[in-house]
This record gives sequence, structure tokens and C-alpha cells, in this order.
Amino acid sequence: MENKPKAVLLIADGLGDRTIKSLGDKTPLEVSVKPNIDRLATDGECGIMDPIAAGVRAGSDTAHLSILGYDPYRYYTGRGPYEAAGIGMDVMQGDIAFRCNFSTVDSDMTVTDRRAGRIVSGTDQLAAAVDGLEIDGVKVIFKESVAHRGALILRAPGLGADITDTDPHHEGGKILTSTAKDPADLASAKTAAVINKFVRMSYDLLDSHPVNKERAANGLNPANVILPRGAGIGPDMSSFLEKYGLRAACVAETGLINGVAKYVGMKIIEVPTATGGLDSNLIDMAKAIVDALADHDFVLCNVKGADLGGHDNNPQAKIDTIVKLDEMIAYLMANVPPKTYLTLTADHSTPCAVMDHSGDPVPIVFWGEGVRSDRVNKFDERSVTAGGVGRIKGTDVVNIITQLMFVQEKFGA
Amino acid sequence: MENKPKAVLLIADGLGDRTIKSLGDKTPLEVSVKPNIDRLATDGECGIMDPIAAGVRAGSDTAHLSILGYDPYRYYTGRGPYEAAGIGMDVMQGDIAFRCNFSTVDSDMTVTDRRAGRIVSGTDQLAAAVDGLEIDGVKVIFKESVAHRGALILRAPGLGADITDTDPHHEGGKILTSTAKDPADLASAKTAAVINKFVRMSYDLLDSHPVNKERAANGLNPANVILPRGAGIGPDMSSFLEKYGLRAACVAETGLINGVAKYVGMKIIEVPTATGGLDSNLIDMAKAIVDALADHDFVLCNVKGADLGGHDNNPQAKIDTIVKLDEMIAYLMANVPPKTYLTLTADHSTPCAVMDHSGDPVPIVFWGEGVRSDRVNKFDERSVTAGGVGRIKGTDVVNIITQLMFVQEKFGA
Repeated sequence: MENKPKAVLLIADGLGDRTIKSLGDKTPLEVSVKPNIDRLATDGECGIMDPIAAGVRAGSDTAHLSILGYDPYRYYTGRGPYEAAGIGMDVMQGDIAFRCNFSTVDSDMTVTDRRAGRIVSGTDQLAAAVDGLEIDGVKVIFKESVAHRGALILRAPGLGADITDTDPHHEGGKILTSTAKDPADLASAKTAAVINKFVRMSYDLLDSHPVNKERAANGLNPANVILPRGAGIGPDMSSFLEKYGLRAACVAETGLINGVAKYVGMKIIEVPTATGGLDSNLIDMAKAIVDALADHDFVLCNVKGADLGGHDNNPQAKIDTIVKLDEMIAYLMANVPPKTYLTLTADHSTPCAVMDHSGDPVPIVFWGEGVRSDRVNKFDERSVTAGGVGRIKGTDVVNIITQLMFVQEKFGA
Repeated sequence: MENKPKAVLLIADGLGDRTIKSLGDKTPLEVSVKPNIDRLATDGECGIMDPIAAGVRAGSDTAHLSILGYDPYRYYTGRGPYEAAGIGMDVMQGDIAFRCNFSTVDSDMTVTDRRAGRIVSGTDQLAAAVDGLEIDGVKVIFKESVAHRGALILRAPGLGADITDTDPHHEGGKILTSTAKDPADLASAKTAAVINKFVRMSYDLLDSHPVNKERAANGLNPANVILPRGAGIGPDMSSFLEKYGLRAACVAETGLINGVAKYVGMKIIEVPTATGGLDSNLIDMAKAIVDALADHDFVLCNVKGADLGGHDNNPQAKIDTIVKLDEMIAYLMANVPPKTYLTLTADHSTPCAVMDHSGDPVPIVFWGEGVRSDRVNKFDERSVTAGGVGRIKGTDVVNIITQLMFVQEKFGA
């Protein structure tokens, strides 16, 4: 049995909020009954954290990169590469990757259903029809994801990612011609030209595909075109193991977070009852974390529920998730190995009133042996501002964890 | 009527101070009666702000640039371009601009009066005598400002701004020969050569000018030379509208602040009773702000009075300005549109004991719907350090405001 220090970084997606009138001008965290999370705050050291920088509205992907220590301004050019990695594709440096929809178009290329009737089966066969194509010397790699979703990789030297979308982003619009955003950017112009051909080829290959003939026979919209968007270039970045010397795993509920984790070389641990919805079984996720600590040094976990409550302006859903998180924290405090440092925070605020990610900072607590516990004994957006941590940035978080673990190299003599 | 969120950023110039013995070891903010400003603190979220960086003594111009989100280390090479813009000159990228004095020299180029008897009229005619010159292929653009002041632009490709001054900065000194600070910097060497010729030409053109003949007849010192200083290069920077997507206006009292605002493309709103002195009518300025909100999203306002009190070591003048600011805040809270975010801060501290700008941080409060109000209920240098905002930098301020307004693009997914 190893006796090395371990770490769990638990990110409650979209947990932060603003004051809500119907909650008596308090936040969901402030009104929730969460004795175990508050014990974490009492025994730990608290602060407020800007996932990217003060006032910057973060996405979940950019925030996770930042919190894992990777500057998103350097390593994030678009969502595509993370989406592709999240469904198990190997994104290589210089690849241009896209997230895609199977959609329905009529013969004049007007999009009539962006999600192709929310197709649930047969996309593997449709994907096989386009995967492996070569267009103007560029290799096409395509993989289906869940429902109408998929991801595309274009692989060739000298491609750029700074292009406009072909997806009109609304039904009734015609498929757009992709162009380089900067006409002088020839690398992106080449990508745009290939994408325009790919979209047309996808229609030619899919419109008469047996899967779609069967859908037509059943009165369902055909998935007869593929619309890529969110182009990004596969960045040259070191893995989490290379960067920190820690064997890392990820327990998450969404492809987006698994994509980021896979990107930095973390082992992805699937929990069948982690649904990505409000019904997710967080105790099963906690058990998976504890199991993963047996042969990993660092486990990242993302719990999605609070974010859903924020996006839906449903404070009660957020509160319910916090109560479930509290049980999860109780399980972790009782079951992680002795020298484990536990950090609880969020990747961004999703205030109910805003119904989207805001740039408000998020609370953070570091807990474990020797931590300089402060006078904060409640974990919420306002209580933690009196904590010992002060106001930090996402890119500070893993450095603080690794120095608590004492696994960090000294800089200097 | 629009129902878009709006913002007012009110900067009380030089507001911050240190503890003063004669005030019972309190600061002017701490002893002032200011119920409305304190209500802002009670309902808002407070913190401490370093206009540029911790401990850095900021100028008003560099601080305003920073607070508007423009890194002054990148965008500020000298005061000249902002002074020129402030009096309505169009400073273009690559221009070298200077602030200038009309001065008095004797025939051996000894400066006998740096302000030419504080000349009040006729400088427009003197300016016309040098405006439009061409020296070694460099175009000379000159405009008079108030009293003995003016601004100069040198326009040609390949000029540099890193030169020494010709102004001896004291009376009885001879006019100096400008040189490039780095002899290898040929672009600046060219500028220095042109400036040396310009100073000599200004004497040749002005010494016998009718305006000066009349001054001599009246026993007044002639304005017979122009001494440029504060060389800076016109930077390549995006406008406030381009950077944030907000239509912005500025209500300020001094050319320096209007210059910065004009530089970033803000509409300059003149308030005749905004004198730049202690007698300024702040309610008229508040009315101008409210009017400007009708067709702008963001209004920057600078009130000068507190800074004057600091420079003059006059705590009472500072207190009097704070009391007037309090009435101004009351007017704004009562009259701004419903979804307006109001931010009150300073561009730097001007402690009475120092009689100049110091590097002490300044208090800041963010106020508006949904702001995470904290336990701070007094707005002063020490009370705000217990606030929820913590310690931020000037470059964070507008990001925080735009995220509260929810007008910021999300970075990532």
C-alpha cells in the first residue's frame, strides 16, 4: 500500500450564483443545508477564484483547462478538438477538429432540421460512409457521438482553424460557404475549401444511404448532411503527468469535460449512473473517485447538476444538487486515503438570473492535513471572501494543491 | 426606450489617501459625512484596486488607460499623444506627439520664463506661424491649448519617440539638444534631429512676430520659442467600442482625461460648469451623465477636486469634494435607468502628506442589480479591504462591469 499524498479536485459545474430575490437576497449556496461542505470550509482554507481572470466569462472547457494549469488563451482555439477527444478520437498537434451535427437539408441545401429528428441510431453507419475520405490531400476522420452529434478531424500539414461556420445555426437557413476569417490566412483558407467540399460530399453520400431510406419509410427526417462547427487546432501541450508528475484520472458526466481531461492525458473513468442530469448518482461518482485513488495520484471530478439549475433559472434544482454534493463530500471525507487533499470549487458561476455563465468569481476551499484553516465556516460565494486564500486565479489551483501534497519541484535553491 | 444594461464608471481623481494626524489618524474618506456613498458600499460589493499594479505610482492618464482595459506598459510611451488628442488633434498610429510650452528665451537660448508670462491670448496666431511646416520631410502639426500650452505632432514614416527633452525644465538653463536615448535607435535619432530644428525655427518665426512685438510694447515676456516635451508615439489600439461593443461617452474636467477618452473613441461631453477646480458643479456633471446614458451604454466620468486637495496638502478641500461627490452619487442613484451598474473608484491616491500621486491602492465599489453585496458598509481605504472583491487591478475593472451587464462574449463552451 502506497502512503503517497493524493488529491481530489471536485468541480461543481456552474455552482456560483448571484443573490436571488426569491431566496431572500441570498445565493443557492447560502440557503442550502450542507453540513459536510461547511465542515470542509471550517477545517480548510477558503477563498474566491477567478477561473480565467477577474470578470472574464468562462466556458466549462476553457475554465477546466485554466484550473488544470493550462492557459486557455494559449491552448484553446475552438471547441472542436476537445469534443473530438471527448469521444475517444486521437487529436494530434496540427489537426483541425470540429464538432458536428447530423442535420436534414432539402435539395437546395436549406436546413430543415438541424438535429435530423434527434436521430438515435444508425449514425455509426452514416459515419462509416464519410470516415476515411481524402479531400485535396487532406485526410478526413469522422466519428459519431451521442444522438445527432459527431466530431470531424481534418489531418494534413499546413491547415488553419480560423474559419467561418457552414452551419446557418437556425432552421430555414441555407448552408453557408465557409471562408477564412482573414483572407490573407492561406492555411485557414485551405481548411475552409476542404470543409465546403466535405459538407457537399456528406450530402451526396448520405442522402441515399440505406439508413436514411429507412428513416424516410418511417416518416423520420433523414440525417442527410453533416454540418461542422467550432473549428480548433490540436495544440502542442504537455500532459498532466509531464507537467506535474502525477498520474491523473477523471470522473465526469459530459463529453466536454472528458474531452479536456483526455486531452491532458487523464484516464477517463466511466460511471454508468453519472447521467449528466439532475438524477445523477453522486455517491457512485464518489466511489469511483475513491477507487481511482488506488492507482492514481490526482482525480478530477466534475458534477454537472448545479449548472443545469442555473441555465434553467431553477434555484431549487441548484439547491438539490448542493444537498447531493454534501452527501458526496461526506462520503469522500470518510473514505479517501489519509494523506488526501480535497479541493472543492466551481468552473464558473451560472447565476439563475443570468441563465448562462457569468464572469462572477467562484468559491474555493482547500482541505487536508496541515492546511492553514481560517475563520470561514460556511462555503458560499460571500463567506469565503473572508478566507485565508484571498482572490486567486484558476491557473493557481493545481500549484497550490501540488505544494500542499509536497510533490512540487523547488524553483531555485 | 431601450432596456439594455448601462454602466457608469465614476473616477474621483486622486481620492485615495493615507492616515492624517490632524484628522485623528484617519483618511479624508474616513472622516467625511457621505451617507449616499456609504449606501453604495452597503448595497454593493467593495474591494481595493491597484490602478496599474501593486505599489506602482500611476499618472492619471496611465491609470485611466489601465482602468479602461488598456495595458499602459503597451499603450503609453509618453504623455504627448494624449495631450494632443485632448485638445482635439487627430493622433494617428506612428505619429510622434509632444506637449509644448510657449516660453521666453534670450538670444543665446537661455530660458528666462518657461511659461512666457503665462500668456493668455495670441497663441492661436503664434501656432499658425509654425503649423504646417515641413522639416526634413516630416510634417509639423501644431495646435495651441490653454494659456502657455500647446501640442505638436510630427508625422512621417519611421520616427521614434525615445528622445531626450529640449526643455531645461528650469529657468536660467539653456535649451538642450535632443538626442535619441539609445544611439542605435535611428528612428528616435531622426525625431531628435527634427525637434532640434523645430525649436530653432520656432524662435526664428516667433521672436519677431507681431504678437510678441505687442507683448514687448506692453512690458510682457515674449512667447518666442516652443519647447516640446513628453514625446510619445501614437499607438495602434482598438477603440472602446471595438473592444467591448459598448457606445461610450466621457464627462470629465481636464484635457488629459478627455484626451485618453478621445483616444479610445469615446464621445466627449462638455459641461461648462465643470471647471476642473474645487468650484466645479458636480450635479451638472451628474445630469450630463444621465443624459448621456440615453444614447450610450457606458459613461466614464472623472471628477478632479479630490486630487487638488491632495496636491495642495489640504485635507479639508478633499473632504469638501467628497461631500459634493456624495450629492452627485445621490443624484445618480436616483436618476440612472433601472439596469445601470455604477462603479465608484479613483485613478490613484494623492495623499495630502505626499502632495503627489502615491502607489497606494484605491477603494472601489460595484453597485447594481444582482451584485454580491458584502458586509462592507463604509466606503473608504480601509473598510473596503474586508469586501468581497478582494484586491484587483485596474485592467480587471471593465471586465467586471461588462460581466455584470452581461454583454460580454463567453470564452469557450
